[in-house]
Amino acid sequence: MAPHSVAELTSSSSWAMVEDKFSPYAKETLAKLIAFFEEEVWPAERLARAQLPDDVTRWQTVIPIIGELKAKARKLGLWNLFLSKAHYPEHGVPLTNLEYAVMAEIMGRSGHLGSEVTNCSAPDTGNMEVLARYGNAEQQKKWLTPLLNGENPFVASSDATNIRTSIRQEGDEIVINGHKWYISGAGDPRTKVHLVLGKSDPNNSNAHLQQSVVIVPADAPGVKVVRQMMVMGFDDAPEGHSEVIYDNVRVPLGNLVLGWGRGFEIIQGRLGPGRIHHCMRSIGAAQVALDTMIRRVTDPSRKTFGKFLYEHGTVVADIAKSRAEIESARLLVLSAALQIDKLKAKGATKEIAIAKFIVPSMALQVVDRTIQAFGAEGLSQDQDLAFVFANLRTLRIADVHIQQVGQRELRRAPALARKTAEIKKKEAVLFEQRGLKVPQ
Amino acid sequence: MAPHSVAELTSSSSWAMVEDKFSPYAKETLAKLIAFFEEEVWPAERLARAQLPDDVTRWQTVIPIIGELKAKARKLGLWNLFLSKAHYPEHGVPLTNLEYAVMAEIMGRSGHLGSEVTNCSAPDTGNMEVLARYGNAEQQKKWLTPLLNGENPFVASSDATNIRTSIRQEGDEIVINGHKWYISGAGDPRTKVHLVLGKSDPNNSNAHLQQSVVIVPADAPGVKVVRQMMVMGFDDAPEGHSEVIYDNVRVPLGNLVLGWGRGFEIIQGRLGPGRIHHCMRSIGAAQVALDTMIRRVTDPSRKTFGKFLYEHGTVVADIAKSRAEIESARLLVLSAALQIDKLKAKGATKEIAIAKFIVPSMALQVVDRTIQAFGAEGLSQDQDLAFVFANLRTLRIADVHIQQVGQRELRRAPALARKTAEIKKKEAVLFEQRGLKVPQ
Amino acid sequence: MAPHSVAELTSSSSWAMVEDKFSPYAKETLAKLIAFFEEEVWPAERLARAQLPDDVTRWQTVIPIIGELKAKARKLGLWNLFLSKAHYPEHGVPLTNLEYAVMAEIMGRSGHLGSEVTNCSAPDTGNMEVLARYGNAEQQKKWLTPLLNGENPFVASSDATNIRTSIRQEGDEIVINGHKWYISGAGDPRTKVHLVLGKSDPNNSNAHLQQSVVIVPADAPGVKVVRQMMVMGFDDAPEGHSEVIYDNVRVPLGNLVLGWGRGFEIIQGRLGPGRIHHCMRSIGAAQVALDTMIRRVTDPSRKTFGKFLYEHGTVVADIAKSRAEIESARLLVLSAALQIDKLKAKGATKEIAIAKFIVPSMALQVVDRTIQAFGAEGLSQDQDLAFVFANLRTLRIADVHIQQVGQRELRRAPALARKTAEIKKKEAVLFEQRGLKVPQ
Amino acid sequence: MAPHSVAELTSSSSWAMVEDKFSPYAKETLAKLIAFFEEEVWPAERLARAQLPDDVTRWQTVIPIIGELKAKARKLGLWNLFLSKAHYPEHGVPLTNLEYAVMAEIMGRSGHLGSEVTNCSAPDTGNMEVLARYGNAEQQKKWLTPLLNGENPFVASSDATNIRTSIRQEGDEIVINGHKWYISGAGDPRTKVHLVLGKSDPNNSNAHLQQSVVIVPADAPGVKVVRQMMVMGFDDAPEGHSEVIYDNVRVPLGNLVLGWGRGFEIIQGRLGPGRIHHCMRSIGAAQVALDTMIRRVTDPSRKTFGKFLYEHGTVVADIAKSRAEIESARLLVLSAALQIDKLKAKGATKEIAIAKFIVPSMALQVVDRTIQAFGAEGLSQDQDLAFVFANLRTLRIADVHIQQVGQRELRRAPALARKTAEIKKKEAVLFEQRGLKVPQ
Repeated sequence: MAPHSVAELTSSSSWAMVEDKFSPYAKETLAKLIAFFEEEVWPAERLARAQLPDDVTRWQTVIPIIGELKAKARKLGLWNLFLSKAHYPEHGVPLTNLEYAVMAEIMGRSGHLGSEVTNCSAPDTGNMEVLARYGNAEQQKKWLTPLLNGENPFVASSDATNIRTSIRQEGDEIVINGHKWYISGAGDPRTKVHLVLGKSDPNNSNAHLQQSVVIVPADAPGVKVVRQMMVMGFDDAPEGHSEVIYDNVRVPLGNLVLGWGRGFEIIQGRLGPGRIHHCMRSIGAAQVALDTMIRRVTDPSRKTFGKFLYEHGTVVADIAKSRAEIESARLLVLSAALQIDKLKAKGATKEIAIAKFIVPSMALQVVDRTIQAFGAEGLSQDQDLAFVFANLRTLRIADVHIQQVGQRELRRAPALARKTAEIKKKEAVLFEQRGLKVPQ
Repeated sequence: MAPHSVAELTSSSSWAMVEDKFSPYAKETLAKLIAFFEEEVWPAERLARAQLPDDVTRWQTVIPIIGELKAKARKLGLWNLFLSKAHYPEHGVPLTNLEYAVMAEIMGRSGHLGSEVTNCSAPDTGNMEVLARYGNAEQQKKWLTPLLNGENPFVASSDATNIRTSIRQEGDEIVINGHKWYISGAGDPRTKVHLVLGKSDPNNSNAHLQQSVVIVPADAPGVKVVRQMMVMGFDDAPEGHSEVIYDNVRVPLGNLVLGWGRGFEIIQGRLGPGRIHHCMRSIGAAQVALDTMIRRVTDPSRKTFGKFLYEHGTVVADIAKSRAEIESARLLVLSAALQIDKLKAKGATKEIAIAKFIVPSMALQVVDRTIQAFGAEGLSQDQDLAFVFANLRTLRIADVHIQQVGQRELRRAPALARKTAEIKKKEAVLFEQRGLKVPQ
Repeated sequence: MAPHSVAELTSSSSWAMVEDKFSPYAKETLAKLIAFFEEEVWPAERLARAQLPDDVTRWQTVIPIIGELKAKARKLGLWNLFLSKAHYPEHGVPLTNLEYAVMAEIMGRSGHLGSEVTNCSAPDTGNMEVLARYGNAEQQKKWLTPLLNGENPFVASSDATNIRTSIRQEGDEIVINGHKWYISGAGDPRTKVHLVLGKSDPNNSNAHLQQSVVIVPADAPGVKVVRQMMVMGFDDAPEGHSEVIYDNVRVPLGNLVLGWGRGFEIIQGRLGPGRIHHCMRSIGAAQVALDTMIRRVTDPSRKTFGKFLYEHGTVVADIAKSRAEIESARLLVLSAALQIDKLKAKGATKEIAIAKFIVPSMALQVVDRTIQAFGAEGLSQDQDLAFVFANLRTLRIADVHIQQVGQRELRRAPALARKTAEIKKKEAVLFEQRGLKVPQ
Repeated sequence: MAPHSVAELTSSSSWAMVEDKFSPYAKETLAKLIAFFEEEVWPAERLARAQLPDDVTRWQTVIPIIGELKAKARKLGLWNLFLSKAHYPEHGVPLTNLEYAVMAEIMGRSGHLGSEVTNCSAPDTGNMEVLARYGNAEQQKKWLTPLLNGENPFVASSDATNIRTSIRQEGDEIVINGHKWYISGAGDPRTKVHLVLGKSDPNNSNAHLQQSVVIVPADAPGVKVVRQMMVMGFDDAPEGHSEVIYDNVRVPLGNLVLGWGRGFEIIQGRLGPGRIHHCMRSIGAAQVALDTMIRRVTDPSRKTFGKFLYEHGTVVADIAKSRAEIESARLLVLSAALQIDKLKAKGATKEIAIAKFIVPSMALQVVDRTIQAFGAEGLSQDQDLAFVFANLRTLRIADVHIQQVGQRELRRAPALARKTAEIKKKEAVLFEQRGLKVPQ
């Protein structure tokens, strides 16, 4: 059987919008990626889950099939595709954000297995970006290289506000003290280092110069993984989301990234592209949910009272809405990716923020409808839906982004006022010429 | 002051998605269209309304400024842009559906003034398409030419189902008897002919061969415009939406279009592109509503208790949602337009149907939020919002299209089942190789 | 045929909740009201509309059937039922707010015909309340008596903020200058007086003492009805909603209500009960819309493709949602009415505000679904739906009330904090007794 | 500090609606219940969680504090309150459904701890109702008594359709074979018996006579608890929701309940009251979520950028909407409970179905907003919100009930048609008397 085409996997209408923006290399890579997922990744999904123990040893497990798939992906050149040459000339691949966005959706069609086996999973991607952009040669050699090789997943604190971690110099050492929650990946046995953001100059009048970023080895004395935070009952092992205490942790001065007080700059630079990739993966997840729903409601063994599920008008409507919502969200994210390519992340702030508040809500709704089609089974461990729902729920932090989009839109007010004044002036002439009074 | 750019008028992100798909001619035409609207159309909007009387003479009025604008538009080549050369080689302009879609949004930014002055307004566009595609040489000369010249707006029955009009041959004449509602434009004094769909062979076992289309002069004996139907209190004069009785109306045989029993074929051919143009105009209307809202909430004279309206978080959220919804709907329609260019309307059925159920609801919601920002004034004749709302409401006939989209999606079920079987087979091998049992 | 029971007209479940709170007099009055509506009012609805001319004379028309119905209603004692003896011992009827609320829903089942023929229509009700509560004996004799007799509908400015009308004393006269919009009833030929709120002491440091209320004869020199404001294309003749200018209008000092600077007090006192009656009438309108929808979708002449409209699952769902939403809104308003009976309007602020933001949105949604079931006809003058929609839309001013409810809820925070502290204290003891550490 | 009043715990407006329907006994019991929850239950919530181990021993755990609370509740007479004397004269307490509904909300304010310690938790309540109504004396003595004493939680199959379990007689034994999922409580070590519904006469032409109910000891050979089904990642230990296989299980004939083929009758009788109690508990859960949200957004330690969370208009709006939605749902359920008291469950079918589709969606939305106010912490094990969300999600099976309500509403069509005909007849007379033509 022929492999899925990209138009089939995502949608023919969105693919038509972007196809002519793809380089030959990107097209070829995309085709390889699809074939790889069809041949290797999707068939391995349940095996990966079966290879993760149910008991506490799950936190010490390196899932064998993931290692095998990583090796294959690397050999095929389906590796670190998120790292764009345009932004990272030395380490990157020649893919635009738009090109990668389409690939991220494919990866998102296999939960985090998809991005992990291609070394494209968050939060490692963000960490690699930080080191590729801001790390010095030595830091890159020591920490970036293994990361790019898919070893040693890093760890980061995603939260640039509400910083309560202190980072200060003592002699030729840096001392870190802090308490953090939801440190993704800290539970993973392969994690060798943490990338820690904290306050190094809390009294600096410029709030953007108060923070610094430090590389901290995971086994440094004082690094304590307190426990794993649950996400709606899921532990997300073996990566997990840990509560971590940094208790008088000491590292050499050379572990400071970029320089004192440049933490905000680093975190800002790290955002942008990465975040939109999340969105594309979520769209992949939503598309899988829709496909799953279609399979379920057309399953002949599910007839009730002689009727297929899909013979209910409300079920058909749910499918239609899901299709329309996925498609419009996909186009939004693709166009945001294109804006990033054209104007950098900074010039695409509004488009990125729109994607961030639209996509998670949309995907949650689609997954919820699929759960509904399954009944209780949809919430159980026999389907992946509840797990996907839980992960998507963590991304729905709509309010911040809604306000941001609204504020950006409001910046158009002065230009609108000027244009309106221009038109009013011309209108006045028209009325005057005809001896008429302009209405209020 | 520099004219608006298309990116500014619609959005920079959607423009970036389609810009490279525009021919030089299309780009130039679009720029001319924008300049024309800025210089001539928008300043004339309220004049056009002022030139329409309040009393019954409104139904006999030809609004002077519209005539002037039509002459200018024609001279500038901004004329009949809806008629694509690709589909109508003889009469059409060299614009793709996608290219015209962007222009239709600009036109939609000035209600039906925008499409009327460029001879692109419904339902004339559909009628021109019918005659250009299905009319014989004589019919085209007699009826199409004046239409293409912007004279004699036609009239049509939009409803291909629930047909109760009879069309039968008697000698060398055709006799029409029927009763129709919502015949757009029948109230207009310039209307010279009706294009009537009716049952010519009601007992034909093939339901698609029961109908015919006939050209009927507006002044033929027996054509009675009974009254004007209101739309939420608006009469939409001077075009209006009439209740019309055809009482033993007789026309020569030569007025039959295409042939007996080909009415369904004609009506089907007429749909498609035209309908999506409606969507783009609605997006233009929504964008104007959003701009109006931004102007209102930043109007310094509207402060209440020392606060601007835009300082309320809920107002900001309304603006953000409107922006995101407009943008995603716009991208949906543009991608549907592209599908039509690639696969004809028939190949783009799903995309068209999605656009048709998403856009009107979206636009109604945006206009409703703007009404809310204005309070009672938003519902009055001092703003155009209620009129726009009423017009958009007639377009929201969601259920049909939702079911259609859902049914189309469900057609993917067999392919999904096959792909799933493929993957299961590979999965079975993986488990077997490891001596594991495949989970249920 | 037996008359409708109240349980049938509203709902059996809500009636069961309140029936035992009704006095024998209230029950008897309600039964009479229902019989009157069945025998006289509902059959007369379309006649009333037919008796209103289409042309400008509509503004000078006193609709004959309304006069006849008023005479009958008065004779039956179905008159001024809104005026509760509890609040207005002299003029009122012995009905509680809750009892009247159920009657207001019945009245709302016949648009404003229902409340007009029983002399219970806004804004007259509010004006009667003002004069009954705050007018002196002379004012009551001269102005209240005709109002209570159903003559001389009054007029009022509903807007207590954004006051731009000035009211000042000159010698023994009061001089009024102002410009107002949406003065309901000013277009009616029977209107004899205006009740005008304006600023008499704009610089008073106490914002609540800046305003006064004055009685102004409609034919006083300087009272100019400029034009009628439209509501979504409807003029609401013959009452209308007028733009009015008060241009140096002079009235005797005796026309001042209550005293200088007491305008705010008057307007506040006038709110409350009246507003919730609006809500009950809206619920009546929604219930009529649902009944209309049920009739439509079960109409055998509306079958399409051999299927009744109600055989679509989505139509059934629309009906179910409408039923549930009407019922829950009804219970909310009834419980708010009961709170007013128990705690006066002031003690029921939150319940009133909830009713005000929930009911109009709910009713609009129900009416919109019914419009949808009718298609284009639902928006036309052949159905009352668009008119009802327009009127309901003016009531949806949600944001103010939402914020008000939210703020009131937040006042519960200190009590919640105290209770939580109590519970934590007990919890600490429990853990301590067992030698366990209280979790963070 | 004074204990909460019921008006404070639920809402003053809903309490005012039902207070006068409460017997003195019910009022007294309610007051005792509130005091008990304040003094004993709420302070013990986190202790109960702390006493449940994290590892597999959780499935063998009897949580000590629950036992203590049960003893206290029983002593206080706060025991088996769900079992109404009206329906179960022998074993029941003298409470109406309405009275118990208010108590169920209080219980719902403490998750299943609240209903468990008062011996009112599902699915035991339903099982007790079955045995109390349909069990013979011997069965009651052997199985009902321990249940009423709060020992031996039972187990039931909730699903009356899709039955694949076979129940047949062999000699003087009954043989059961089947496979069931989501058997609540089967994981609990205290569970002594299962109440099994299955097909005893699958070919009976009357579908309602095909099934029977049998009492099966939990330790009978062939009863296999295969595994625990998860609900969004939660196992709900120690009760759990098990997958169970009945593999040739044999029980004596005396274990048959009521008689062969009476399974459907039993299951039907068991529904009704019990289901509405679920709704009231869900309302309690929603109210707790709202209270939690208010506490969070007013927590002074949560200020961001100098602003309290509650200073955002959108947060205030969320609180207001939650308040209004909880209140309207509460009134709906209380009125449904009253209908059950008046008309039995059968006469209240529509009200019950409305409650069942409105309440879970409402509660999920409120809990989701609270989660949003907490951010990631809201999804973690540090808050109870995700667990509550997961449980509520299992209850949202809206579609069935929506269709049921819609179908019931549609039954009003004939009566509506008759009434309309009556009114039309009177209308015709009115027009005729005036020599006018009735409009179409």
